[in-house]
Amino acid sequence: MSATGAPDDELLARVFLTRVVEPGDEAGGRWVREFGAREVVRRLRDGGRPLPGVSARRWTGLRARAEQAEPHRDLAAAREAGVRFVCPGDGEWPGQLDDLGDARPLGLWVRGRPSLRMWALRSVAVVGARACTEYGAHMAATIAAGLAEQGWVVVSGGAYGVDGAAHRGALGAGGATVAVLACGVDRPYPQGHTELITRIADQGLVVGELPPGDHPTPSRFVLRNRVIAALTRGTVVVEAAHRSGSLATARAARRLGRHTMGVPGPATSGLSAGVHELLRTDAVLVTDAADVVELVGAMGELAPERRGPVLPRDLLGPATREVLAALPARRAAPATEIARSAQTSADDAVARLYELRALGYVERHGDGWKLTRQATTSLRGGRGPC
Amino acid sequence: MSATGAPDDELLARVFLTRVVEPGDEAGGRWVREFGAREVVRRLRDGGRPLPGVSARRWTGLRARAEQAEPHRDLAAAREAGVRFVCPGDGEWPGQLDDLGDARPLGLWVRGRPSLRMWALRSVAVVGARACTEYGAHMAATIAAGLAEQGWVVVSGGAYGVDGAAHRGALGAGGATVAVLACGVDRPYPQGHTELITRIADQGLVVGELPPGDHPTPSRFVLRNRVIAALTRGTVVVEAAHRSGSLATARAARRLGRHTMGVPGPATSGLSAGVHELLRTDAVLVTDAADVVELVGAMGELAPERRGPVLPRDLLGPATREVLAALPARRAAPATEIARSAQTSADDAVARLYELRALGYVERHGDGWKLTRQATTSLRGGRGPC
Repeated sequence: MSATGAPDDELLARVFLTRVVEPGDEAGGRWVREFGAREVVRRLRDGGRPLPGVSARRWTGLRARAEQAEPHRDLAAAREAGVRFVCPGDGEWPGQLDDLGDARPLGLWVRGRPSLRMWALRSVAVVGARACTEYGAHMAATIAAGLAEQGWVVVSGGAYGVDGAAHRGALGAGGATVAVLACGVDRPYPQGHTELITRIADQGLVVGELPPGDHPTPSRFVLRNRVIAALTRGTVVVEAAHRSGSLATARAARRLGRHTMGVPGPATSGLSAGVHELLRTDAVLVTDAADVVELVGAMGELAPERRGPVLPRDLLGPATREVLAALPARRAAPATEIARSAQTSADDAVARLYELRALGYVERHGDGWKLTRQATTSLRGGRGPC
Repeated sequence: MSATGAPDDELLARVFLTRVVEPGDEAGGRWVREFGAREVVRRLRDGGRPLPGVSARRWTGLRARAEQAEPHRDLAAAREAGVRFVCPGDGEWPGQLDDLGDARPLGLWVRGRPSLRMWALRSVAVVGARACTEYGAHMAATIAAGLAEQGWVVVSGGAYGVDGAAHRGALGAGGATVAVLACGVDRPYPQGHTELITRIADQGLVVGELPPGDHPTPSRFVLRNRVIAALTRGTVVVEAAHRSGSLATARAARRLGRHTMGVPGPATSGLSAGVHELLRTDAVLVTDAADVVELVGAMGELAPERRGPVLPRDLLGPATREVLAALPARRAAPATEIARSAQTSADDAVARLYELRALGYVERHGDGWKLTRQATTSLRGGRGPC
C-alpha cells in the first residue's frame, strides 16, 4: 500500500499476475525479474511484443486469463474477508522466500493478525500423510505442541492427517501456527477443516499464493509445498508413504539448505516407509520437539535471539509495544494476563508475543511468557513509556 | 594341531593363556605379540622376569591363575564336547579378527561342523535388547530369515530377546547362524536357551573365547561384543534402550570400519530410543534384509562371489567337494536332495553349501541352491570327478 492507503502500482500488478501466472511458474518469475511486474502486466493487457520464450498458443492463453483479471476487485474481496496481499518489498515479506529464485511467489495472500515475516523467522514445518495412523497423528501433535511450547511457530498445509494434527497440537499448546494453502485463503480446503482453518486464521496465519476464491489443483498442492519448505527453518516429515507429497516438501527444504528431518516409525508400516527412505539419505532422525529445536535452533544466522534484540523497540508497531510493556519485569505471566494488561484479546496478545519472541524480547516459560535477559538489559533505564 | 594330530606348542600356549588372560585384555595381546605366546606362558609358569607394565600384585594374580591352567585337560574336555580350538595361523582362523589389534582373541573355541573362516566371510550380526518387544522379535526374525535366504550367515550373541529371535529366524529359513558366547561354548548361557544353542551347534556354529566350563561375567558380555562386531561385515541393531550393550557392539563395528545399521521403531518406544540415537549419527537405517544386503554386499574387497571363485576347487575339503559335485548342473535343488546325493546329513550339506556360497560357487535360489554362473563356467570342461 502507498502512504495514502491506496494500493501502489507494483502491488496491483502482482495481484493481477496471481490471476494469470500459476504458482511456481519460473518463466513468470523471470519475466517479472527482467521487465518488472508492471511491464509484464502492460504487455499482457495491452498486447504488444509477446514475452520471451512464449509460444503463440501460450501467449493467447495467458492473454485470455489476463482479460479476466480484476486486481481492484480481488483486493476488495480480500479486504472484505480480512485478507491482505504481501509482496516482495513489503515490510511483512519473509525474505527467505527469495531463496526460491524465479519460483518465488509473486506475493502471498495473508489472513490473520501476526506479521508473517516475524513469525516465519522462527518457524518449522511439520508435514506428512493425509491418511496417517494414530501413531502419526500423535507424533505430529506432540512435536508441534513441544515446538509451540518452546516458542516456535508450526507451519503446515492445513490438510487432513498429519497437517491437521500438527496445527491442532500447536493451537492446543496456546502456540503459533501457520497454514499454507493451495487455494484462496478465504476458501478453506479441505471443507472438513473449515473450522480448524478459521481457528488458525483467528489465532495464527493462513497464507497462500492464490487469489480469493481460487481452487486447489494437484499441481498447486505440489507447488504449495515449496512455499512451506522455503518459509521455514526446517521441515519435519512425520508419516509418509513412498512417493508422498511430503517427501517432495522435505527434498525442497533440503535443496534450499533448510534442515530436513524425519520421525521414524515401525519398519513394518507402509506409512513410515517414505520417511525411512528419506532418513537413509536426506534427513536427520528426530523423535521429539527437543531434537528438532537442537537442529533448527543452531541456525545462528536466522536466530536473532542469540545476539539480543536486533530491532530497536522504537521500530516495533504500537500494538506490539503495548504488549511488550505489559510484560511484568521479573516473572513469567500467562498470555491472558498480558492481554488484559495490554487491553487486547488473548489471540492478539499471543500473536504479538510470538513476534517479540522472534525478535528476542520474550521467551516462553512453562505456560507463560517472560522478558529475556537481553530484553531486560536493553529496556533497563528507559522502560517508562515503552 | 600338528600333522601328527598332537596339539602344537603355539596352540597349547594359547589355550593355556585363555585361562589366564581375560578376553580383550590388550596388555595380554601385546605380550603375545612382543614375546610370543610360548614365552609368555614360560614366564607365567616358571617365574622369571615379570611381563612389562605389570604391577607386582597383578603379576601374583596372573601367576596364581597360571598355576591352575591345564591346557591338555581343557583340550581333552573340549574334544569330548565336540569343541575345537582355532587360533591365528590356523586355516580356520577368520582373518578379519586381526582388525582388533592387541584386543584380538587369543583363539576361539568352536563348536559345530562348518568352517568359521568361510562362514564369517559372508556374515552379518543381528543384535539387540534382551527384553525386546514383539515388534523387535518380529523384525529380528524377519531380517535374519531374509539374510539367510540370500545366503548370508547371521551372527548373534545367543541371548534372550533379539539375539534369540535372530538365530531362530535364520534356522527357520534353513539358513546359517553363529552364536558368539561370553562363556565356555560347552556351557550354554542363558540356561533357557540350552536347546536353541544346541540346535545352533548342530546346524551352525557356537563360538567363544572362554575355555570349556568357564562362566560369563558382565565384562565378558561387553568384550564378547567386539568379537561379534569384528567377525561380521556389519552389525544390525534391532531394538536397544539408551546405554544398551548392543549399541556398544554397533559402535565397535563402526570403529572397525564395518557397516553399522539400525532398525527404526516407534519414536514413543524406549526400546527403540537407543537405535534412534545411533541412527542420528553412527548408523544407516535399514528396514529389511534387502536394505542390509545392499550395504554389506557392496563391500567388494570381502565379496569373492563378485569376482568369481577365488579358491580353486582342488583346495576345497573332500566333503565340501562332494557337496559341490552333488549340485545339479542347470537347476536349483533343495538341501535335502543335495545331501542325499552327496551321502551326508542335511545339516552337514547346509554347512558346506554356505562355505561354497562364501566362495562364490553356489547361491540360494528360492528354497533351494544352485551353481552360480561363475561356478558353471569354471567347472565346465572338467566337471567329472570334481
